[in-house]
Amino acid sequence: MNAPLSAVRTVALDASGGDHAPHAPLHAAVAIARNTDIGLLLVGDRARLEPALRAASVDPDRIEILHAPDTVPADEPPQQALRREQSSLARAVQAVADGRAEALVSAGNTGALLLHVGRAIPRIHGIRRGALAAVYPTLPRPHNPDPFALLLDVGANLHTTPEDLLQFAWMGSAYAARISKVPQPRVGLLNIGEEANKGDELLRAAHALLAAAPGLHFHGNVEGRDVPLGAVDVLVCPGILGNVVLKLLESMGEVMTRMGEPVYRQRLRWRVGRFLLRDGLARVSNLLDYTSYGGAPILGFERIVIKAHGCSQARALENAVKVAAKAVREDVCGAIAEPLAGGGS
Amino acid sequence: MNAPLSAVRTVALDASGGDHAPHAPLHAAVAIARNTDIGLLLVGDRARLEPALRAASVDPDRIEILHAPDTVPADEPPQQALRREQSSLARAVQAVADGRAEALVSAGNTGALLLHVGRAIPRIHGIRRGALAAVYPTLPRPHNPDPFALLLDVGANLHTTPEDLLQFAWMGSAYAARISKVPQPRVGLLNIGEEANKGDELLRAAHALLAAAPGLHFHGNVEGRDVPLGAVDVLVCPGILGNVVLKLLESMGEVMTRMGEPVYRQRLRWRVGRFLLRDGLARVSNLLDYTSYGGAPILGFERIVIKAHGCSQARALENAVKVAAKAVREDVCGAIAEPLAGGGS
Repeated sequence: MNAPLSAVRTVALDASGGDHAPHAPLHAAVAIARNTDIGLLLVGDRARLEPALRAASVDPDRIEILHAPDTVPADEPPQQALRREQSSLARAVQAVADGRAEALVSAGNTGALLLHVGRAIPRIHGIRRGALAAVYPTLPRPHNPDPFALLLDVGANLHTTPEDLLQFAWMGSAYAARISKVPQPRVGLLNIGEEANKGDELLRAAHALLAAAPGLHFHGNVEGRDVPLGAVDVLVCPGILGNVVLKLLESMGEVMTRMGEPVYRQRLRWRVGRFLLRDGLARVSNLLDYTSYGGAPILGFERIVIKAHGCSQARALENAVKVAAKAVREDVCGAIAEPLAGGGS
Repeated sequence: MNAPLSAVRTVALDASGGDHAPHAPLHAAVAIARNTDIGLLLVGDRARLEPALRAASVDPDRIEILHAPDTVPADEPPQQALRREQSSLARAVQAVADGRAEALVSAGNTGALLLHVGRAIPRIHGIRRGALAAVYPTLPRPHNPDPFALLLDVGANLHTTPEDLLQFAWMGSAYAARISKVPQPRVGLLNIGEEANKGDELLRAAHALLAAAPGLHFHGNVEGRDVPLGAVDVLVCPGILGNVVLKLLESMGEVMTRMGEPVYRQRLRWRVGRFLLRDGLARVSNLLDYTSYGGAPILGFERIVIKAHGCSQARALENAVKVAAKAVREDVCGAIAEPLAGGGS
């Protein structure tokens, strides 16, 4: 039923995952085919995808379709979703595990994606746990042109050891070095105070490990207020803490808009100012708009997997595919394996 | 050396704690004496305080001075600070413990204040751990006119049990009911997802306890994004998580301003709009300005203690003193003890 495979595709894209599937993944795929040389494996319902690609006059050699008749609902418990072997998510993960594509992008059910990846794709030798890393906007960091910093883990792990936090730091640092092109990313440990002895046993032990790790540019503990101010390029923390912090950051744009609008209506002069400044305010809100980020890499496995936000539109998915292709090109997985092979942990 | 005590004072105010001492506490004390009937015990260096109060023509009966020659530096390790028995912080806590005042406000060293309070003031019978609670601004909550919600614990505890989280919920609920005047405050548990089975063992067990607690209006789990959106009136969480979240919230106003200003300068029309809207933007930033909040109550002890932010100006301290007096008047400590006396835990 599937077309014969002519070559390994760079990125597999889940065409049924996310709130705006299949339209958003389709539009992203068409844009990628037109504007880049990235080879795509589009995983979803062939009966819907094929006519849409034909209608968009996409060169059939540029996008290969892998048929998957089923979809994992966004709110399905992950263990239950694991049983849907014909879902786009399961088939896309398996295709990457089988080497039919080198990286994966999905806006589908996060828990199900983590479970499928953990089951089908081997962990990098020496890595104890995979981590979900998220990019978030900060104020400008003078040494790093990337407007985004990396936060991990943001929820792949409920239990974390000091050694896990050290590995998160290695993985995040390798990813940031290759993707942001900063040779020595600054790594921080999220904590309740800057001093080395702050926090509980986990955070104190992690601080000691991070401070002693060769080749890691450890900046020290980072407090909550310094997260968006941009103290570091890579911020490591246990999964529950990272998840809460990420979601709080994600709400900032909406909070500012919804707090501001009733105020700006209170005076005529403010209403005029608000009108003149409207697209400036929107641009600032866009700086904080998580739906336009490239997505959250799942690190620690032998393939690059990027979890795009469930509400991703085509542009966010297109960005995620480009980032995934860059991570393949820059051999992020090899960079993560390097310090471990050298006895770095 | 001290003047004879004529009456129990309502609030003891640490006149040497905080970045702007003694000016900010002095100005706050003068405003309280002029505009309210709250009796004040001002704790600090008599040689500086007495002439200043005289110069401000304050009725000497309204403010009593308790001499304390020493000050705890803001960055001194709490254990070390504990040895400064002549500090304003130590003397103020002792005065409250001795019944010379009914509540305490200090902008001094948080860790030292927590240690002093824990050592000198008895915990309410049945309460296992005190908690540091912080108020933070949310979007309007239809059922609650108070623009602030309560978050606890924000760092008094590094280790938390499910039972502790239940007690934090009782204490926060009692405080919010008496201070915000909402009969049944909505209580939430900060977690990585809304479903009851989300989180680690601690959070799952706490969810079960909270859901079963009689007399508590438990709203369920609250995710990071819903914190500033105002899902609940009282949000409970372990201390490290609460500390990071609070400090992140505190930076929001600054982040918005610093992200916005370079953008608003980019076009002439935006510069004009920015100029017309300048005090509107400032008002929104003020809504988020943590230095103007009333301060963070330390709950669980037989006296009300309010930790004001280290950078508090006079207005914030004045607010904190008013809130402390209100907490005494409304018998918040009695309200916390009530469900425990009734076997509620």
